[in-house]
Amino acid sequence: MHALKVTRAEDFPEWYQAVVREADMAELSPTRGCMIIKAWGMGFWERIQGELDRKIKETGHENYYFPLLIPLSFFAKEAEHVEGFAKEMAVVTHHRLKSIDGELKPDPEAELSEPLIIRPTSETIIGDAFSRWIKSYRDLPLKLNQWCNIMRWEMRTRLFLRTAEFLWQEGHTAHADEADARAETALALEIYRQVAEDFLAIPVIPGEKPENERFPGAVNTYSLEAMMQDGKALQASTSHYLGTNFAKAQNITYQDKDGGISHAHTTSWGMTTRMIGAAIMVHGDDDGMRTPPAAAPRQIVIVPMLRGKPEDEELKAYCHEIVAELNKLFAFGWPLRAHVDIKDARPADKRWDWVRRGAPLICEIGPRDAANGQVTFIKRNALREGEKIKSHTLPRADFIAQATGLLETAQKEMFDEAKTRLQSNIRDGFNTFADLERYYGTDDESGEFKGWARVHWSRPTGAALEEVGTRLKALKLSIRNAPSAQPASYGTCIFTGAPAVEEILIARAY
Amino acid sequence: MHALKVTRAEDFPEWYQAVVREADMAELSPTRGCMIIKAWGMGFWERIQGELDRKIKETGHENYYFPLLIPLSFFAKEAEHVEGFAKEMAVVTHHRLKSIDGELKPDPEAELSEPLIIRPTSETIIGDAFSRWIKSYRDLPLKLNQWCNIMRWEMRTRLFLRTAEFLWQEGHTAHADEADARAETALALEIYRQVAEDFLAIPVIPGEKPENERFPGAVNTYSLEAMMQDGKALQASTSHYLGTNFAKAQNITYQDKDGGISHAHTTSWGMTTRMIGAAIMVHGDDDGMRTPPAAAPRQIVIVPMLRGKPEDEELKAYCHEIVAELNKLFAFGWPLRAHVDIKDARPADKRWDWVRRGAPLICEIGPRDAANGQVTFIKRNALREGEKIKSHTLPRADFIAQATGLLETAQKEMFDEAKTRLQSNIRDGFNTFADLERYYGTDDESGEFKGWARVHWSRPTGAALEEVGTRLKALKLSIRNAPSAQPASYGTCIFTGAPAVEEILIARAY
Repeated sequence: MHALKVTRAEDFPEWYQAVVREADMAELSPTRGCMIIKAWGMGFWERIQGELDRKIKETGHENYYFPLLIPLSFFAKEAEHVEGFAKEMAVVTHHRLKSIDGELKPDPEAELSEPLIIRPTSETIIGDAFSRWIKSYRDLPLKLNQWCNIMRWEMRTRLFLRTAEFLWQEGHTAHADEADARAETALALEIYRQVAEDFLAIPVIPGEKPENERFPGAVNTYSLEAMMQDGKALQASTSHYLGTNFAKAQNITYQDKDGGISHAHTTSWGMTTRMIGAAIMVHGDDDGMRTPPAAAPRQIVIVPMLRGKPEDEELKAYCHEIVAELNKLFAFGWPLRAHVDIKDARPADKRWDWVRRGAPLICEIGPRDAANGQVTFIKRNALREGEKIKSHTLPRADFIAQATGLLETAQKEMFDEAKTRLQSNIRDGFNTFADLERYYGTDDESGEFKGWARVHWSRPTGAALEEVGTRLKALKLSIRNAPSAQPASYGTCIFTGAPAVEEILIARAY
Repeated sequence: MHALKVTRAEDFPEWYQAVVREADMAELSPTRGCMIIKAWGMGFWERIQGELDRKIKETGHENYYFPLLIPLSFFAKEAEHVEGFAKEMAVVTHHRLKSIDGELKPDPEAELSEPLIIRPTSETIIGDAFSRWIKSYRDLPLKLNQWCNIMRWEMRTRLFLRTAEFLWQEGHTAHADEADARAETALALEIYRQVAEDFLAIPVIPGEKPENERFPGAVNTYSLEAMMQDGKALQASTSHYLGTNFAKAQNITYQDKDGGISHAHTTSWGMTTRMIGAAIMVHGDDDGMRTPPAAAPRQIVIVPMLRGKPEDEELKAYCHEIVAELNKLFAFGWPLRAHVDIKDARPADKRWDWVRRGAPLICEIGPRDAANGQVTFIKRNALREGEKIKSHTLPRADFIAQATGLLETAQKEMFDEAKTRLQSNIRDGFNTFADLERYYGTDDESGEFKGWARVHWSRPTGAALEEVGTRLKALKLSIRNAPSAQPASYGTCIFTGAPAVEEILIARAY
């Protein structure tokens, strides 16, 4: 009945793999733990890049590019940072291969005197540059960004969600004082919120991570948390206020107006190709991906009903004319992206390919449409009425005039649908840890949609927080964040029974 | 007198380093052989990316992303390819660090069973994907592109020209037959010619590389050759027809219409951040970089003559209004990029910063300009009259109305200037090798501008070609390419005295 062989209800993880594969977004590569991002996945990432890059630049950041490889000694500088990252990283030890006994091997004579690490993140090498570039308060704030690949060795991989190599941007800034650096941390999180909600139609909850989930070396870590269709949470990007920790480790100082020397306050923040996985798990359905129109590589796809006959040329011309007119329009602040699919394949197969990829508007145009000057189309985000595919027909001029509006409406419908799901699946009313145990501890393997818990706590630290983590872990739960929007008053802590000081979200997570 | 401490005439290599540094384009990093690309250099690369990516997509290619790391065994498949590349590459041997005797080291227990190579180019791993994706003639042509970082270990580095890590795009395509693959090879070279000439104002000569300069494993390699201001040649991009060599090594086959199985014909082609170095050496002058307007990150920069007084606000508003109007315009097919520099620094220092970076139009606007409703500006490509800086003044409305035209004119002037230099410095009339020796063998160390030699040859192969290479190398020369535009008839070969069959270009090169 549906385009995929497995449904979300039957097996959510299998369904996810099926969408990634059938939508032609990515596949595993022969390099262990690394993915090949295919055309539709890469096009989606390019749209995210375009939108996010524009916002990053509009807010006064400039793009730089720093080396892929970082000398090992750099990781020894910030103690907490090493502790957090120094474990699973790809290490380059040789710079030459040699044929030894007929086999290609690392040349023993070409061993590096100091091993190089493939960047797992670039605070250390960018901090080193900051220490050279920043001399005076006039050099601050220094606000830069980098688009690149990074690598964190992962044993269990899942396309887009957890792979050894992935793509991201990393913002790095230095400021004269704490207030300016904190404002920057908040600005980055707000930019991410806009991209997630307005561009990817993914509703998110911004908030602060608990102490034990901070980025290694950070003073505060903030995240966006999004809800997947299986009720799990996915961290959709992070922004860190690093205080003067990295500045002290790397000697990032500046001379202020009065001639005194101070340490700069730094921040870092990143959004990754993981967002593609998030979009799939928020918007996909049993027919495949539903790509949010703002971010779809192709927003309107026309499949001409070609029949290998001379009349085909006329039909193709009709389709190309419509696409040419559509591509003069703007949608979501970018030129509209329409496309005629003239691949050598059966029209019905092509239509289903675009359904699985989730092109927002898919037009099937036959000779009758051309003769009547009309366009027949389906809306991917509202594909079916009951089990039947629902198609619409409009006069050509009306379709073109309404195209941007149709895309905007679809975008809004997708956001509203996801927002309703998020809001109606955050559960209150847990007064004790036993309440939480009762709710999440039963039917553990049923896969039943449980959503998130919103609870109050006394914000324990250190060993007490570790214990909270252990108790939650037994239920496969974790603290997601303390939402930025907090209530006016608090009850008692569900972990300690003490008066609570904060509201937090608890969930299973990717 | 001039903005740089060293002139082109005094010391061209030193001058080049000074431009890269003073224009804030790049610097060496603490990672040996790797560069940090700074804001103005990265902005320039982003403009090249934007233009080239648009052309690549318009001609039916889609972007993919393949793994950074390639299993060592992949390099053993195409024998000639290994021979050419298997030497200087970064080798990953471990996936974890461990603290051993208080020192971070590669964990001996985390040694990879098969070393991984940081891609020096991606034919092998993309070919492997092709062998899985291509089944039928309906899957062909398969035309894809990737933007990424690559690594080739280099001992002597020069910013943008030769570094261990650099950025590029690599196109990879598979075709049913030779004709289609050859057409693709030519198409890629033509796209590169357009980007070089129309976008970067760098005149180039397309042609075929001699047999001994082919990409390892290629049947034919084509290049664009550009002339630097010191008379040396720089290879400005390459396009390879790979025949069925890679297809045979990697089993890339398809079923044709009649059910037979054939090997696909493949191509690959690339353009790199080296183009930034080329643009500097073609367009730079003794005041720094002159950025071609089409590719300049900021095309029009306004420096308000702020004096730390209340009137500053009015002046800033005037400048911002002009920039807002300019940024509504289009130039070279993209939105125009104008900018007000309100950095906390002396206006004269800021003006010189933009001169050294080579912003095409630099406006210095003071209270008198604002009061008179006018714009005072300098054209970076025609900065001086004699030794004096030449400035221009236009009424505000005229400046805005003429802005696109001023940029287009500057672009054309820069191209024409470089084209004239190229054409007038290719020397004919070498009838024997002794002629060549006489010309290039004298004043070898004087640094005198010698340009290129256009000679006829009998296209020797194998050992005879090696000998030609050796003789040329003694004069520090090499064969650049056999231009696509060939004469109607040929004289005798300057190397062998035999009847010639081809015209080639000989030069010193980067």
